[in-house]
Amino acid sequence: MDTERARKLIEQVLTKNRFEHSLRVADTAVTLAKRYDAPVEKVELAALLHDYAKCMTQDELRNYIEKYDLPPTLLAYNSELWHGPVGAMMMKYRYGVKDKDVLNAIYYHTTGRANMSLIEQIIFVADFIEPGRNHPGVEEVRELAEMNLVLAIQRTLRNSIIYLVNKNVTLYPDTFYAYNNFTVKGEFD
Amino acid sequence: MDTERARKLIEQVLTKNRFEHSLRVADTAVTLAKRYDAPVEKVELAALLHDYAKCMTQDELRNYIEKYDLPPTLLAYNSELWHGPVGAMMMKYRYGVKDKDVLNAIYYHTTGRANMSLIEQIIFVADFIEPGRNHPGVEEVRELAEMNLVLAIQRTLRNSIIYLVNKNVTLYPDTFYAYNNFTVKGEFD
Repeated sequence: MDTERARKLIEQVLTKNRFEHSLRVADTAVTLAKRYDAPVEKVELAALLHDYAKCMTQDELRNYIEKYDLPPTLLAYNSELWHGPVGAMMMKYRYGVKDKDVLNAIYYHTTGRANMSLIEQIIFVADFIEPGRNHPGVEEVRELAEMNLVLAIQRTLRNSIIYLVNKNVTLYPDTFYAYNNFTVKGEFD
Repeated sequence: MDTERARKLIEQVLTKNRFEHSLRVADTAVTLAKRYDAPVEKVELAALLHDYAKCMTQDELRNYIEKYDLPPTLLAYNSELWHGPVGAMMMKYRYGVKDKDVLNAIYYHTTGRANMSLIEQIIFVADFIEPGRNHPGVEEVRELAEMNLVLAIQRTLRNSIIYLVNKNVTLYPDTFYAYNNFTVKGEFD
């Protein structure tokens, strides 16, 4: 899978809005990759593919979670969390993507997790700050992302937790563990 | 250990302010025990003893965490979380308190945990809403506590998480698991 093929592939399966979001995430991620010395082509590939499964129906996603033996506990959490793991499995088994960092960046781009690799960190933040986003707190994270990727991730996770807890919904454990992990990391930066 | 002896014991080891807080927690907890059909004497005992170790120094608490083989990970989190587990162990080993619910209510009163027993729930909430408290959100929790203990606990946990995450500090895992657990429970109430 190269970036050219990835671009064609997602153009077929995503809505126009979601496709354009993915291109913006790719641009943002490439800028971050250059800033933080990450492998640019892998980062661009992961960014283009991160939302591959985003426009599937809940039934399709549920079927793939079973087919690919993904953790059944996913089904107990918000369905917004399903497309990352499903997209990663489809890239691995249907499209032959082998790179662990690319697959993990797709898998964990919504929830985050403790000890994310540099490529995972870049995709996680780029998805939150691409120019089309206007979440509360996004400006602070955009500024931090230019100087300190760990703090940018900590603030992204913190904003997500506050958003979800204010809605009185459950938090996915990986998000909680990511928050603690990047909060401790951030203390030493 | 009966409530009379507990009262004398905590009067010796707590500051005047903390002793009076404990008496108010006991009054609030007894009211909740009657409201929710919990065993009043156990609830009162747990409430009186919940802060037994609150006025120890960090060094004393750290020594007891080691002496009683409490989880060493406690030491990686805020020292505010240490006095519950230490107090419970001292009641068990030094004062011969045997009741599991009383000991667990003391142990988990600061962090909460998933699947708290009724007595644990009452101490956890009473500590948050006793009349001397004026945290943000305490009035809502006071009202909820009269009608729905599970929702009162969910809001207490949620308020704690928002408070801590806004300060960019780590969350103790039991608090996170308690939040998810009581959020799911609350959906079915």
